[in-house]
Formats: sequence, C-alpha cells, structure tokens
Amino acid sequence: MSSDVRAADAAFSAERTLVAGIDIGGTKIAVLVTGEDGAVLARGVVPAPAQEGGIAMADAAADLTRDLVAQVSGRLRAAGVGAAGVVDPDAGIILAASAMFTDWVGFGLAAALTERLGVPVAVENDVNAFLLGEVAAGAGHGSDVLGVMLGTGVGGALLLDGVLRHGPNGAAGEIGHTPGYSDLVCTCGQIGHLETLASGTSIALRYAERSGATGLGAADVAELARGGDLDAIAVFHAAGRAVALACASAATLVDLDVAVIGGGVSHAWDLLEPAITATLRTDAPVSGAPLRIIPAALGSDAVALGAAAAARSRS
Amino acid sequence: MSSDVRAADAAFSAERTLVAGIDIGGTKIAVLVTGEDGAVLARGVVPAPAQEGGIAMADAAADLTRDLVAQVSGRLRAAGVGAAGVVDPDAGIILAASAMFTDWVGFGLAAALTERLGVPVAVENDVNAFLLGEVAAGAGHGSDVLGVMLGTGVGGALLLDGVLRHGPNGAAGEIGHTPGYSDLVCTCGQIGHLETLASGTSIALRYAERSGATGLGAADVAELARGGDLDAIAVFHAAGRAVALACASAATLVDLDVAVIGGGVSHAWDLLEPAITATLRTDAPVSGAPLRIIPAALGSDAVALGAAAAARSRS
Repeated sequence: MSSDVRAADAAFSAERTLVAGIDIGGTKIAVLVTGEDGAVLARGVVPAPAQEGGIAMADAAADLTRDLVAQVSGRLRAAGVGAAGVVDPDAGIILAASAMFTDWVGFGLAAALTERLGVPVAVENDVNAFLLGEVAAGAGHGSDVLGVMLGTGVGGALLLDGVLRHGPNGAAGEIGHTPGYSDLVCTCGQIGHLETLASGTSIALRYAERSGATGLGAADVAELARGGDLDAIAVFHAAGRAVALACASAATLVDLDVAVIGGGVSHAWDLLEPAITATLRTDAPVSGAPLRIIPAALGSDAVALGAAAAARSRS
Repeated sequence: MSSDVRAADAAFSAERTLVAGIDIGGTKIAVLVTGEDGAVLARGVVPAPAQEGGIAMADAAADLTRDLVAQVSGRLRAAGVGAAGVVDPDAGIILAASAMFTDWVGFGLAAALTERLGVPVAVENDVNAFLLGEVAAGAGHGSDVLGVMLGTGVGGALLLDGVLRHGPNGAAGEIGHTPGYSDLVCTCGQIGHLETLASGTSIALRYAERSGATGLGAADVAELARGGDLDAIAVFHAAGRAVALACASAATLVDLDVAVIGGGVSHAWDLLEPAITATLRTDAPVSGAPLRIIPAALGSDAVALGAAAAARSRS
C-alpha cells in the first residue's frame, strides 16, 4: 500500500458520518442533519408540495437534505423519513393518506429518496417516528411505550419490547379510533372514538356545541379555559379523561408503564393534566406497574429525530 | 455397532413420545396426555388440593399424569401447565394468585413437576394457555389473536406475531381491568372495568340490582333471558356490548383480526352475540381488517391443550 493511499484512508475514516431525519407532512417538510450520537448539526424547513405529487415531495426533501449536509462537514450515510399516512416500512411505500396529498398513495418514497441521496432510507409513519424520537431523546424512556399525538386527528404508536408494533395489517397504534368514549360521530363515520373528544378539531367542535360560539380553534378554547370559561374547561376535562382512559386501557392490555402525549393539543397540558391525574387515580387498574402519562418533550423536532433514529437502527 | 444395539435403537426410535397438558385451577386439576400431533390419548381429572399448598398440588398433578401415561404406550418427553394466577413463564414460578390457594405464590411449579416427572415443564397462566389451545386446535387461527375468558372474573391473553405477550411486568392481557365501561366498582376497587359488566359474578349482581331477585347465578340469568325476562336480556346485552368495545379497542390498538371468547359466560353466546354484532357495526373502526369476535371451540379442554402446545413449542 502506498503512503498516498494510507493518507487517503486516514482522511476517510476521520470523516464524520451523518444521518438525516426528514419529517414530511401535508404543509411542510422539515429536515434535521444529525451526527451518529443524535446531536443536531443543521436544520431546515420548506413548504411541502403535497398537491404536486410524490416526485415533487421527494425532490423537495432531497434538495433540502443535500443543502443541509453541504453546510456541515461530513458524509451522509443514511436517512429516515417520518411520513404522514399509513406506511409499509419494509417496502418504504405510502399505503394510505389524507386527501390533501396528490399521487402519494402507492408512492415508493424510500426508493425515490435513495435514488436522490445515494444512501439507505428508512420510512416510518409520522406518529411512529414521533414515538421513536421521544424514546431516543425525549420524554418516553423504556422499551414498552405508548405514543399519542393529539393534533388535527388523534394518532398513536406502540413500542413493545423495544420494537415498533406495525401489526399484520400495518394498522397498529390507531388509538384515536378506539371506541366507547362518547356517543358522537367520529371523522371516520363510526361512533364514540377517542378522536371525538381529544383531537384539536373535536375540542373546537365540542366547545362550539356547548357555548354556541363558532369559528374558534383549539388554542382559542384553551385560552378561554385558562380565563375561567366553564364550557372550555369542561371540553378539556372530557379530552383529558378520555385520553387517560384510552392510555390506561392500552397499558392494561399490553403492559406498559409510560404513555407520551404529543401534538398541538398537548401544549394545553395544564388543562388536560387534572382530568388525567383524577382518572388514573379512580379508573386505572391497580395491577402491573403504575402508568405514567407524560407530555412530549421534543416539540416539533420529535418526528425528524425519530426518523433519524430509525435510520440509525436499520443501517 | 452390534446387532443387539441396533435392535434396541430401532425399538427406542419407534416408541411413541407423549406430551402432557395440565390444567391447574382452584377446584380441580385436569390432565390430557397427547401425541406429538396433539391428539388426545388419555384424560383425567382430580380435585385440586389448593388449600394444602404447592407441594400437594404438584404431587396430585404428577400422580395423575403418571397414571395417564401408564395407560397409553409411549414415553413422556415434556409437560405444560396452565395455572391460575400470575405466572413467570421463564422461571416457572407463581407470582400472584387468589386467596383460594395456600402457599401458591412463590411456588416453583415447573421445578417441582420436572423433579416428579423427569421431563421439561413449561408453565403458563391459564388464560394464556386457553388462548394457545384455541389457536392450536380451536377457534382462533392466526398469529395475532386476543383471548378473553368470561368466568368468575374476566381474564385476557394476547398473541402477537405468534408469541404470547407477557409484558415487562408480566401483566399483559388483563383486558378485564380495562376501564371506561360503567360507573360500577370493580372487584379490584377501581371504577368501570370490563369485569363490572361481563364476568359471571357481575352478570348475577347486575341482574339482582335490576330485578331485586337475589341468589341467582349467571346461568340462571341466561335461562331467564332465553324465557324473555327483559332485565336478564338487558344484562347480557350490556355484557356483550362491553366485550365488543373492549375487543375492538384491543384490535385497533395492536392490529388483530380475531378475538376468541371463552369461559362459562361464553356458553350464553346466543345472548351475547346480538349486542356484539351491533356494536362492531356502529362502534368498531373501519381501518385495518374487520375484527371477528368468535366463541371458543374447545370447551374445558382448551387450557390443557394449550399447555401441551406450549410444552411442545418450548422443548
């Protein structure tokens, strides 16, 4: 071996390797470039061209990722994506998504990004990625953890024995559509699902029904509750109680100690927490370890950090 | 090798090997001796000396097993136990049990039976064994199945990816203590658990509350319902609806297609089924595969057959 080759080898082995975490939603694409230790070295966000189709989405995500990698010294070795919709994580394909996405169902996201970035790409559902992020770097430590996202809808994810549960139909974790919490019609058309009480959309609807005041969002209702509005307080109480019952049921069924609650509605933790605590005290089972229901810690970075963690563990 | 040794080898290899399945409850011990194909070759039952302690229980189970093995030609190579109570399946130890058992908690059941029978012994909780039995030879085919036992209490078991879920605290499957189904106090002291509506004890209690008639058991209430008693019909309707909601919640959370319902109350399937079907139609989620909730097929053999299946898969 010549001394030139040895020198090149030494330079190559000293080069820092990077892992990108990509959060693809309906309105924006956020990318974090991380080191092998998970530290965030660069970050960026661009609008998501969701109506332009999968190719445009992959182009936008790959362009942003390449720009960020160019800002830090190092070589990208893998990327992970947390994508809205139902995902086949083995094939890296989108199986189902909301109507706000064009040409997204059936899109081979992993292959498209691998082609553009030249590295292996892991694809997960965004709620699964949120949970992986919180477990890796946020609030939810342990190998058996439930993740719940209270956003426009209510999503869920389940880590069992340290592995994300996908299920035989790829449908595991859908805690938002567990039934028995109300007599209200859910967005899916069925009755009484958790989502009828605990999503941001439902909090706004339930407040409008009680108060007659329309046009307010969940954040507005939270402000009213903090100001003492009894209808707004009641709506958050019902949401918190339903979340606690759903988490306690899940914990009782699969045996887990921690549920991490994220999404926009979780920012009103001060309004949810009293009902969660009261419900756990009276309704949760006494067998097994006591369930802790805690707010997410990573904010909007959780999905991208979890996607990077998925990429790191798969490559 | 001499021809004598060859002949002995041939005789040995031709000898049939047997696996015993042992169902240890609070009132009786039932044993099935099975072939490698799971066919039942001999069966027996003796009273359980539950008040005399673990040693007496192990003696009774081992004596019955040896008697049954002696009735059929073959060599016992393994045994499995389905035992009432919380079990550590790796250590083969009873972790918790009802007050009807003396010196049972902490008892090394697997070691005691291995010492007496001279073969490896697998120990499972009886509801887990019930589910393994139904999956191996009964109603619940598949690798992701929920088992629910509606007996004196309500027990549950969860098969995920073909493996029984035990959970980090050994407490998985306790669907009887999932909350949110009523405002009634459960046997555990907490509020609203599935068991408050769906156990045999609760069916008797709820009927007494509605009708004022006391001293009737769940089977009596079932007969009254079949005769048109509206209070009795309502009590079974409430039980069926709660079971369906609990199964649908479990299926939505972990993604599974089949729930198998066993135990004494499941013999009133004609009374439970209308509410189960109606509830699945209106309340169960529409995502994933449609959930089937079906009655157990093996009757009282399920626990012993599942215990034998556990022994076969572990040895």
